[in-house]
Amino acid sequence: MSDKAPWITFRPELRVLDCTIRDGGLMNNSQFSDSEVRAVYAACVEAGIDYMEIGYKNSHEAFPKDQYGPWRHCDEEDLRRVVGDHTFEKTGLKLAVMADAGGKCDWQTKILPAKDSVVDMVRVACYANQISEAVEMIHHCNDLGYETTLNIMAISTVHDAEIDQVLEIARETPAGTVVVVDSNGNLYREQVDHLVNKYRKALEGTGKEVGIHAHNNLQLAFANTIEAIILGCNRVDATMLGLGRGAGNCPMEILLSFLRNPKFKLRPVLKAIQETIVPMKQRFDWGPNIPYMITGALNAHPRNAIAFCEGENPEDFVSFFDKMQNEG
Amino acid sequence: MSDKAPWITFRPELRVLDCTIRDGGLMNNSQFSDSEVRAVYAACVEAGIDYMEIGYKNSHEAFPKDQYGPWRHCDEEDLRRVVGDHTFEKTGLKLAVMADAGGKCDWQTKILPAKDSVVDMVRVACYANQISEAVEMIHHCNDLGYETTLNIMAISTVHDAEIDQVLEIARETPAGTVVVVDSNGNLYREQVDHLVNKYRKALEGTGKEVGIHAHNNLQLAFANTIEAIILGCNRVDATMLGLGRGAGNCPMEILLSFLRNPKFKLRPVLKAIQETIVPMKQRFDWGPNIPYMITGALNAHPRNAIAFCEGENPEDFVSFFDKMQNEG
Repeated sequence: MSDKAPWITFRPELRVLDCTIRDGGLMNNSQFSDSEVRAVYAACVEAGIDYMEIGYKNSHEAFPKDQYGPWRHCDEEDLRRVVGDHTFEKTGLKLAVMADAGGKCDWQTKILPAKDSVVDMVRVACYANQISEAVEMIHHCNDLGYETTLNIMAISTVHDAEIDQVLEIARETPAGTVVVVDSNGNLYREQVDHLVNKYRKALEGTGKEVGIHAHNNLQLAFANTIEAIILGCNRVDATMLGLGRGAGNCPMEILLSFLRNPKFKLRPVLKAIQETIVPMKQRFDWGPNIPYMITGALNAHPRNAIAFCEGENPEDFVSFFDKMQNEG
Repeated sequence: MSDKAPWITFRPELRVLDCTIRDGGLMNNSQFSDSEVRAVYAACVEAGIDYMEIGYKNSHEAFPKDQYGPWRHCDEEDLRRVVGDHTFEKTGLKLAVMADAGGKCDWQTKILPAKDSVVDMVRVACYANQISEAVEMIHHCNDLGYETTLNIMAISTVHDAEIDQVLEIARETPAGTVVVVDSNGNLYREQVDHLVNKYRKALEGTGKEVGIHAHNNLQLAFANTIEAIILGCNRVDATMLGLGRGAGNCPMEILLSFLRNPKFKLRPVLKAIQETIVPMKQRFDWGPNIPYMITGALNAHPRNAIAFCEGENPEDFVSFFDKMQNEG
């Protein structure tokens, strides 16, 4: 990139991951219709997006089928019903699923060999204290033939010394990417700098990439994503219309309007938003609002804000502020 | 500020300006009720905000009273009806008005001496090509006893050479602050860096401050405001719930939750938002959406997006995208 006006050109090695259906599934127990998932998939292919994370690989026991839609388990037949005999070679798109540590995923038994699946990548998500299981999961999925990533969640709540330790462990895994995950939507630009630089340094020489997954509590999801990109992060997450838990994610449409790589097309994403994502607002809502801002600024999990917004008096956010201050 | 974690402490010289009523007035022809303006004023005082911009100093001829509310002209009797015999000494708050160059303001005849007014500051707004009139206005208001600022609008459309020239002229005026105004909501972080550094360098040694006025088309208003602060900008604009033209402004509530100066209180702002600003959404709407994102990304004035959103088919933003691409 030119030093003079680096935003004018682009970095070919930057990869964009759409996690609309996966992260959005936290808003509706992953109960998207086949045609909704198909529309997002088609838009990803047309828009030149690199990865689509189509759902969670959660266990049927912990997330029973009568309460959760198929995109919570990503059984092979459900995936193929929507994407057919998808391959990267045919579409330019890779499919990803997210597997959670902590007993949420029967990873030992429920993940097919990669050659028998339309899935190309497994993203392993864990909290810092679950790193040991996550490492086993990464090895297992790598042995099955998948690309893997390590997504360390709620990173704004983890102390530096622990992050350093986790990154040392991550170095030794086959994960191709380690993702900075701002689950609480709490990070400001200078903290993004601190973390991305730390990850880059810790992974230096391994060929591993750093990723960013931002939430929009403080209306910083896109800004923090740009910031991470400027600092050399080459794997970025976004969702259409920012669909995602609580305040939502980095909006794909804004991200694509920023990236200068001509392979990315904005129009298919706008079309999917108009025809498929906007109508979802009648069933459930997401996006920045004051209760999510309050939890973000306090570095608290959004669960309190979600409960408040679903409660009896969601307009009275001053009382939510008072409650959170007193609990703090 | 500490180099190690500068976001933990605060810079006492940073001043916050609330322009809710002034910028918001572009959404409703400045037709706010007295009680609405009084609620914003009271919240500014209670919250420790430094300046409140209460409206435009526009001419009665160009903006007739039967179409525009009192906050478009800021006649002294209208101001006093709401703020009484306001003084900075009593409240800790300074009142500001915005005076536009380009024949929108009868500044030669309609601005009282500062000693006869509750207003403390006149912000002179101009496009780069109106700088000569703006300089006259600044001198005039300074002679009348006001603090003054120079707000050069739509800066993302002005070439560097012209900006340099305008800043050279600004150096020689009595304006205490020169504000980077991103009218189109087009600036990314690196361009904010470029501009704020340029302004700081051009004004070095004059004691003048640099200000930032950001719009939220790309959901970067708050992020760009933080960025400007990091680079030494000490005068920042924000509005409650981001109320302002089109995609709106930097949200005051997010800004105050970020600033660490204990003099700033968030709760009064949340209360005013809940009781006074949120109910306005029934009369008119603002905030980030896809048409404003499109004009922001294209560095176009938001007027096309505003017209589209007020038109017959505001849901069909794909056709707006097509139209803007073809016109570009």
